[in-house]
Amino acid sequence: MGMLIRGLGPNDRAAVRSALTAGGAFSQLEIDVALELFDDPAYPHFGAEIDRIVRGYVCVVKTTLTESTWHIYWLCVHPGSQRRGIGRALESRAAQFAREHGGRRIVVETSGRPDYEGARAFYSRIGYREAGRIPDYYKPGDDCVYYYKPIT
Amino acid sequence: MGMLIRGLGPNDRAAVRSALTAGGAFSQLEIDVALELFDDPAYPHFGAEIDRIVRGYVCVVKTTLTESTWHIYWLCVHPGSQRRGIGRALESRAAQFAREHGGRRIVVETSGRPDYEGARAFYSRIGYREAGRIPDYYKPGDDCVYYYKPIT
Repeated sequence: MGMLIRGLGPNDRAAVRSALTAGGAFSQLEIDVALELFDDPAYPHFGAEIDRIVRGYVCVVKTTLTESTWHIYWLCVHPGSQRRGIGRALESRAAQFAREHGGRRIVVETSGRPDYEGARAFYSRIGYREAGRIPDYYKPGDDCVYYYKPIT
Repeated sequence: MGMLIRGLGPNDRAAVRSALTAGGAFSQLEIDVALELFDDPAYPHFGAEIDRIVRGYVCVVKTTLTESTWHIYWLCVHPGSQRRGIGRALESRAAQFAREHGGRRIVVETSGRPDYEGARAFYSRIGYREAGRIPDYYKPGDDCVYYYKPIT
């Protein structure tokens, strides 16, 4: 059972919405913002397909006013398809895309909430370092944790 | 000689451009981005006027996907008008505006370069705490330093 990583387009919108809503982790506002990014052709999106179904996706964007920094704005794996290396493959594709376009590091801003511990452990595991944290950033009790990884 | 802090509009564009270009600290790209923000009515701008001349300005914006976090995107004082409390008055107006719109903290991302030491000392002096730093963020040798301040 192979995994295909490919660029996503308008036809993949339903799959993206499904990946975002299925886990129950994202609020309606977060889903709306993620789909707004998806609908904007300025934001590159890549999906991971297994058996012709998109199981997760990543959005990676060059950071304004930087020479070679990129942000992963969104990385999401359908809850039914986790622990299969999909997140790792998506991050790797995003890093490759950034590198091909002159990127030298990736930044991720994620939540410090207990239910994001898996996400934070994932980024540590694949080479990201924690740069700092702002308390109550998203909402009271929900810090922002900054991660970065050199991709030279 | 009093200082007037007021909302800025299209008629103030030349003064804003002058504040941005006079010091030589900002690149052409930074100036273009700052003026793009200025031209977008979604981004509130406040200016500090002395003797009817705008000597500096601030841009403060609610941060997407947060409940009550705001970013100061730009704070700039004309180099000929520094050390007169203008930066402090502008930050204070920005914080007041954010608070009036439900803001509970302000985040600032600034440069770790030696020539930004004055800016970093300024934020520390007025109550901002350093949250972390990402090396080479803007360009090689030019880190991003994250500051935040609760405004409850």
